[in-house]
Amino acid sequence: METVKPRTLSGFMELMPAQQLQMNRIMDIVSSTYALYGFTPLDTPVIESSQILLAKGGGETEKQIYRFTKGDSDLSLRFDLTVPLAKYVALHYGELSFPFRRYQIGKVYRGERAQRGRFREFYQADIDIIGDGELDIINDAEIPAIIYTVFTRLGLRKFRICINNRRVLNGFYEMQGLKEKSGDIMRTVDKLDKIGEKAVREILVRDFAISEADVDEVMRFISISGTNEEVLNALGAYRGKNAMLDQGIDELAAVANYMKVIGVPQENFAVDLRIARGLDYYTGTVYETVLLNHPEIGSVCSGGRYDNLAGFYTNKQLPGVGISIGLTRLFYVLDEQGMLNNEVNTCPVDALILPMTDDLDPAIALSAQLRAAGLKTQLYTEKKKFKAKMNYADKLGVPFALFLGEDELKEGVVACKNMKTGEQVKLKDDEVVALITEHVKKQNEIASVLDI
Amino acid sequence: METVKPRTLSGFMELMPAQQLQMNRIMDIVSSTYALYGFTPLDTPVIESSQILLAKGGGETEKQIYRFTKGDSDLSLRFDLTVPLAKYVALHYGELSFPFRRYQIGKVYRGERAQRGRFREFYQADIDIIGDGELDIINDAEIPAIIYTVFTRLGLRKFRICINNRRVLNGFYEMQGLKEKSGDIMRTVDKLDKIGEKAVREILVRDFAISEADVDEVMRFISISGTNEEVLNALGAYRGKNAMLDQGIDELAAVANYMKVIGVPQENFAVDLRIARGLDYYTGTVYETVLLNHPEIGSVCSGGRYDNLAGFYTNKQLPGVGISIGLTRLFYVLDEQGMLNNEVNTCPVDALILPMTDDLDPAIALSAQLRAAGLKTQLYTEKKKFKAKMNYADKLGVPFALFLGEDELKEGVVACKNMKTGEQVKLKDDEVVALITEHVKKQNEIASVLDI
Repeated sequence: METVKPRTLSGFMELMPAQQLQMNRIMDIVSSTYALYGFTPLDTPVIESSQILLAKGGGETEKQIYRFTKGDSDLSLRFDLTVPLAKYVALHYGELSFPFRRYQIGKVYRGERAQRGRFREFYQADIDIIGDGELDIINDAEIPAIIYTVFTRLGLRKFRICINNRRVLNGFYEMQGLKEKSGDIMRTVDKLDKIGEKAVREILVRDFAISEADVDEVMRFISISGTNEEVLNALGAYRGKNAMLDQGIDELAAVANYMKVIGVPQENFAVDLRIARGLDYYTGTVYETVLLNHPEIGSVCSGGRYDNLAGFYTNKQLPGVGISIGLTRLFYVLDEQGMLNNEVNTCPVDALILPMTDDLDPAIALSAQLRAAGLKTQLYTEKKKFKAKMNYADKLGVPFALFLGEDELKEGVVACKNMKTGEQVKLKDDEVVALITEHVKKQNEIASVLDI
Repeated sequence: METVKPRTLSGFMELMPAQQLQMNRIMDIVSSTYALYGFTPLDTPVIESSQILLAKGGGETEKQIYRFTKGDSDLSLRFDLTVPLAKYVALHYGELSFPFRRYQIGKVYRGERAQRGRFREFYQADIDIIGDGELDIINDAEIPAIIYTVFTRLGLRKFRICINNRRVLNGFYEMQGLKEKSGDIMRTVDKLDKIGEKAVREILVRDFAISEADVDEVMRFISISGTNEEVLNALGAYRGKNAMLDQGIDELAAVANYMKVIGVPQENFAVDLRIARGLDYYTGTVYETVLLNHPEIGSVCSGGRYDNLAGFYTNKQLPGVGISIGLTRLFYVLDEQGMLNNEVNTCPVDALILPMTDDLDPAIALSAQLRAAGLKTQLYTEKKKFKAKMNYADKLGVPFALFLGEDELKEGVVACKNMKTGEQVKLKDDEVVALITEHVKKQNEIASVLDI
C-alpha cells in the first residue's frame, strides 16, 4: 500500500512515553497543590464562538488565533484560559459562590511563527480568584504564595517571583505629567535587559519626545532596588503627591507583607518596579517569575489583578486576580536543560510477569494478586524467544521480571529478578508483593520531579 | 459598556463545579485502572495535518471533521484517538517496545448534527495494545477484563460486555456464498433490536435479493443464544466447513475462556453473534458494552482487534486490539439518570477559615497547618457581614467552618462548626486537624462515584 510519511505538526509537543510520565507528574503536582488551596477544577471547551472569544476584539493576538467556520458557525480555538473563564463566570453568575476560586489546566492555541521552544498548542495551568463587586488585597498575596508552593514541590529552588503594581507605575507617570505616554514608556523600559539603559534613554528622548529631565526621573524611579523593605522605604519618598501612586504603594506594601507572613522566603520574591506586564488588562498587582539560572527564558509564570473580569459579557463588576504557568514551555526548557530528575520512575510497569509454561492460569492469578496490591503489572504472553523477552523487559526499564516455569510452579514459588542488580531469588507470592511494594514506596519517596 | 451575551456552543459540555469534580473522579478511576495494567499514558496533539489524519480518506466521518486552513497548512481536529495512535506508532516505531500498551484520555471532535445527549467535543478514554508483526490472542481477553475492572470500580454493576469475532461472521457468510453481501447483511441485522425480525427479513429479501432459505440460515445463525458455553457449543456444529469460520470460533472460544480465567463474572460478559461493529477496520474480536437497565443508550464502550494499525503510514505489520469508553456521553447519561452518587464529596474545600479579627496572622498560620496535613483549606478574608460569610460556607457546601475571634485567640483554640449538624466546639489546632482528617477519610471511603 502507498503510505503517507507520518509526522507531527511543528510547534505541537508530542512526548515519548518516559517524558510523558514526567510531564504527567508535573501536572499532578500543580493540580493537587491548586486543589489544596481550595480551588475547584474547571474544564471549558477548546472551541468557542468567535463572537464570544473575540468580544474584546482586535489586538496583537488576533492574527494568531485559529479561527474557522463549520456550517454557519464562526468558531475559534481558545488562546488562553482567562477569556473562557470570563464567559463561564458571566454565564453561570447566579449559580456560583464568590469569591469563586477555580483552577484549569488545559491546552490553548496560538498560531505563532514556528521557532525552537515556541509552541502553537500548549498547556496553561491557571488559578484565578474572582470577587463579586470587590476582592480583598490578601488574595493578591495568596496567588504568588501558591506558586511558591507549586515550584518548591516540583523541586525548583532558584526562582524568583517578581511583583509590582500597575497603580504605582501609572500613578508615577501621571504625577510626572507623562500619563499619555505611559504605555510607550513601559514598553520601552521593558527592553532594558535586552538593549541596555543607553538605548532605552535614546528611544525615550528621540521617539517619544520625553525631556532629558523626565527620562532621568523615570530611570531613577525604576532603578530603585534592594531588599523588599529597602524598595518599599524608597517608594515612601514619593508618597502624598498622587492618589493613584499612593494606593499602589499601599497595595504593594500589603502584598509584600502578607507574602512574608504566609511564609514565602525573601529570596523567592522581590518587589521589582520594572515589571509591567505589557499593555494587558491588569490594573493593580502584577507578577512575573524567573528561573535565576536561566533568565534568558523570560517569565515562566505571570499574572496579576484586574478590576473587571467579564465586562464584555455582563454589567456585574467582577474583580479578580490570577496567574498562569506556561507548562509546555516550562517542561521543554527543563528537559532541554537536563533539569528533569532522572531518578524519577518513568516505567509504566512495576512488575513484568513472564510465564514459561503453556498453562497461563498461575501467571494470571499472580498478576491479579499484584494488581490487588496496587502494583502496576503486565503479563508478557507473546511467543518470543527468552532473549527477546528479556530485551523487552530491559528496554521498558521494568524493575522486576517475574518468571513462572515448571520448576517454580512445582515448588509454589516465583523466580523474581531485580533487573537493575541482576539478582534473582525464588519467593512465595506474598513475598514478591512485599518486595515490589517496598521498591515502589522508595521510588515514590523521590519527591522532586526536577533536579536543580 | 455594550456586552455580548455569554453562551457556550451547543454540543459542547461545560460542567458546573460539583459536576466537574464528579467527572474528574471518574477520569481518575479510569486512568489509574488503565495504569494498573501497565499501560503508559500518551497525549498527542488535538490538531494534525489533514493529509495525515485523513490518509484513510473518505468515509462517513469526513463530513463531520473540523477542517480548516491556517497560513498554508491544511489542518484537522482529531475525530478519534486511534488515528493519532497509528501515526505515533509509525513515527516513533524504532523508539518503542512492542507490545506497546498505551492509554489516552482526550477530547475528540465531530461536527455531528446537534441533538440532546450528542456531543461535538467529547472525551474518549482509550486503551490499545499494539504488537510488532503478531499479537497473542490473550490480549483480546485482557482488554475487556480491564473494562470490567474499570466499570466495577466506578460502581457500575448491571452492565454486559458483548464479544464476537468478525472472522466468525465473515467466515459464515463466505460459507453461505454471501461474501459479497456480508456488509449489507451485517448492517441490516444490526437493526434487529430497532425494527424487529420481520422487517429485517423483508429488507434482506427485497433490497439485497437474498433467498428465503439463506435468510433462514442467517437468522438461525445469529439467533444462537444461551450461556457462553451453549453458544460456543452450538458454533461447534459449524466447524470444519470454512477455514475463516473455524479460526474465528477458535479465537472466540479462547477469548471467552481467558476472560473466565481472568475472573470476569459470567453475568458481565456474553458471546453475542449479533455484534459486528459496522464496517469498521476490525478484523477479529469485537466488543460492545451495554448498561442492562438502559439498553436504549446503546454501546458505552466499544472496540476490537485490527490486523494492521498503521498501514497508511508504514509498511510494518502492526496488529492491535483496543477499546474506547465514550466518557462525555457516559457521564451525561449517568447524570441524567440520577446515577451519580450524591454522597460523593463535591466540595473543593475541607475547611473554611473565617478570621474575626483584623490581625490575620493566626488564621494564616492555621491554614498552613491544615494544608500541611493535606486538608484542602480556604481562608475567607472578604469584608462581609457574618451572615454573608455563613451563606458562602453553606452554598459551597464546606463540611467545617473554623472561626478565629478575640476569645478563641486568647484561649488558644479554634471554634469549629460542623456545617451539616450545626454542632460547634472549641478545639486546639491539632484536634481540629485530627477531626477534619477523620471526616475526609470517611468521605473517601465512599468509593463508588456511581449509585446504581
